[in-house]
Amino acid sequence: MYPKINFTPGPSQLYFTVEDHARQAFKDGIPTISHRSKAFENISREATDGLRQLLKLPSTHHIYFTGSANEIWERSLQNLVGEHSFHFVNGSFSKRYFEIGQLLNKKPIKVEVAMGHGFTEYPNIGNETELIALTHNETSSGVTTSADFIHSAKEKYPNALIAVDAVSSLPYPDFDYSRIDTAFFSVQKGFGLPAGLGVWIVNEKCIAKADQLLSKGISIGSYHSIPSLHSHALKNQTPETPNVLGIYLLAKVVHDFLRRGIDAIRRETEYKAAILYNTLNAHPLLSAFVKEKEWQSKTVIVAECGEHTNKVIEFLMERGMQPGDGYGSAKKTQLRFANFPTHSKEQYELLVDSLEKFTG
Amino acid sequence: MYPKINFTPGPSQLYFTVEDHARQAFKDGIPTISHRSKAFENISREATDGLRQLLKLPSTHHIYFTGSANEIWERSLQNLVGEHSFHFVNGSFSKRYFEIGQLLNKKPIKVEVAMGHGFTEYPNIGNETELIALTHNETSSGVTTSADFIHSAKEKYPNALIAVDAVSSLPYPDFDYSRIDTAFFSVQKGFGLPAGLGVWIVNEKCIAKADQLLSKGISIGSYHSIPSLHSHALKNQTPETPNVLGIYLLAKVVHDFLRRGIDAIRRETEYKAAILYNTLNAHPLLSAFVKEKEWQSKTVIVAECGEHTNKVIEFLMERGMQPGDGYGSAKKTQLRFANFPTHSKEQYELLVDSLEKFTG
Repeated sequence: MYPKINFTPGPSQLYFTVEDHARQAFKDGIPTISHRSKAFENISREATDGLRQLLKLPSTHHIYFTGSANEIWERSLQNLVGEHSFHFVNGSFSKRYFEIGQLLNKKPIKVEVAMGHGFTEYPNIGNETELIALTHNETSSGVTTSADFIHSAKEKYPNALIAVDAVSSLPYPDFDYSRIDTAFFSVQKGFGLPAGLGVWIVNEKCIAKADQLLSKGISIGSYHSIPSLHSHALKNQTPETPNVLGIYLLAKVVHDFLRRGIDAIRRETEYKAAILYNTLNAHPLLSAFVKEKEWQSKTVIVAECGEHTNKVIEFLMERGMQPGDGYGSAKKTQLRFANFPTHSKEQYELLVDSLEKFTG
Repeated sequence: MYPKINFTPGPSQLYFTVEDHARQAFKDGIPTISHRSKAFENISREATDGLRQLLKLPSTHHIYFTGSANEIWERSLQNLVGEHSFHFVNGSFSKRYFEIGQLLNKKPIKVEVAMGHGFTEYPNIGNETELIALTHNETSSGVTTSADFIHSAKEKYPNALIAVDAVSSLPYPDFDYSRIDTAFFSVQKGFGLPAGLGVWIVNEKCIAKADQLLSKGISIGSYHSIPSLHSHALKNQTPETPNVLGIYLLAKVVHDFLRRGIDAIRRETEYKAAILYNTLNAHPLLSAFVKEKEWQSKTVIVAECGEHTNKVIEFLMERGMQPGDGYGSAKKTQLRFANFPTHSKEQYELLVDSLEKFTG
């Protein structure tokens, strides 16, 4: 029913261990355990301790679970912004984060560049800005905002919280979390897991900010406000009955990643990205949509295929590979290739070999 | 690792078909399909069409998916109440629904009765009330608010929306949805599924109310506002990447329920409840916590066990059965028994046979 290799950027193909972990979960009765039991607390702790180690999170940073990263867009603005957030918009998803601020009746401001472009310098912005929203990897356009650039935000805007959407890039980026106040991702991308779980990293400054808004009488939501998430996280619990199976599978895959080693995962990600960009650069019919090398995402690579798009899809599908469609209006002219830990070197080598053979 | 029979009221034991359905899902690549694909739309339609048939929903009512029923407490008040909701509180969960109104800076009002008690008449309330919140089954106390009582709310309060928390009772109650504007449940209770999915039933009046609040400049949230959920539901999609596996499993179990027949499920539920209440009534050491027959829940049955509580737990665990703890401060003196479609007649017969043999 489905192709062997799935390059769509999310939900992407499952990490190869997930099916076995799920079988074990059912065997051990995981989907039926109480979210108030020791057994659940142990699973939750295994997931967060593992993530802490994998991402090298300092002890100032905490980990909460939500239903999706989409939810974290909303919760982060609801909990961390009284009125003024500032958004770096370079595609459909960073724009959506900005629009959610509007829907929450905040007063978000944005700086926006064209699709395929990124950011090279920080503008001067108002002192009232409470939160700076940066998207490490724009899933719609395949543009990255480099970790170095993100790290320098803290010096430029010392009074604002720095929020990083890393939905389709973690665990690849090697962030210095002492310069990031909050970051988030969803598990169906870089972690190769079934969708239905968002992971929210939040530091002490964020907790203080949420408390401050609450003390001013501003609503920060209910069960998924930062204070509610935090008080439960301290007990390795969640306010609501969560996606227990999802948290269990995350714990197991994070453990698999730790065994493989984050450095090896990062090296392989860079190798796979390099061979695909090289192939696109040398190709007579295809090219990389993002031209500037420093903006080229390592984890979602967008190919400009123009009139050949449908033929490339057919050509790859015949070989058992499913590319991701271009996003929105680029559906007919671009293809997106996820480059996640689940995609092996061999799968990427097969992909570039096939693309090299594509002659229209 | 886990007892054969799990009577905790949620997450409760899985419906016996779930493990096989999950295995098939992984085999067919369901956790990796795009939530914007035809394949997902077909799964989503299968789930909602099946629920529509199972619950006999009229065409005025729509079905949305959220992360949890906890989320629906929040979303329903955010989307359907400008200021004034009125809550019938008879336990910890109906009280939580009321408190969420406070956290959202609304002005909720409640009428409250003691634990173990229910409602027999409707009070006169202010004309400004926009929503009446009723809890069909109080999971904390085992008190039911009968379908008949719920149905009469519409006549008493013709100008308010009638909202029914049916978290731990559906699909058992035979509601007349023409008298209910919104209802909701979570899948890990009556449907015997892994947790991580809430199901929200919403009629046209609710959609109009959310639009009206929005036009007044009141924030009704973002991706999970009713207009956003609705426009996606019309395409059998969701605003965010949802718990695709959860929706798939729901579709399959609803199909299993349809084959078994909702009338048979309801009859069996009543039979199982009757034998357990009979056993508790006749028992020298145990009794039903809820004394009034009309308030006795059919789906979560609370036993007053007093000083024998720990011994009853031990006694049942030795026989492969796990009772649910009493809720909150009743943990040391009560036990709760879920009576969901996943609990077979034979399992309930074993339970009552065992309780009858319990002599302290």
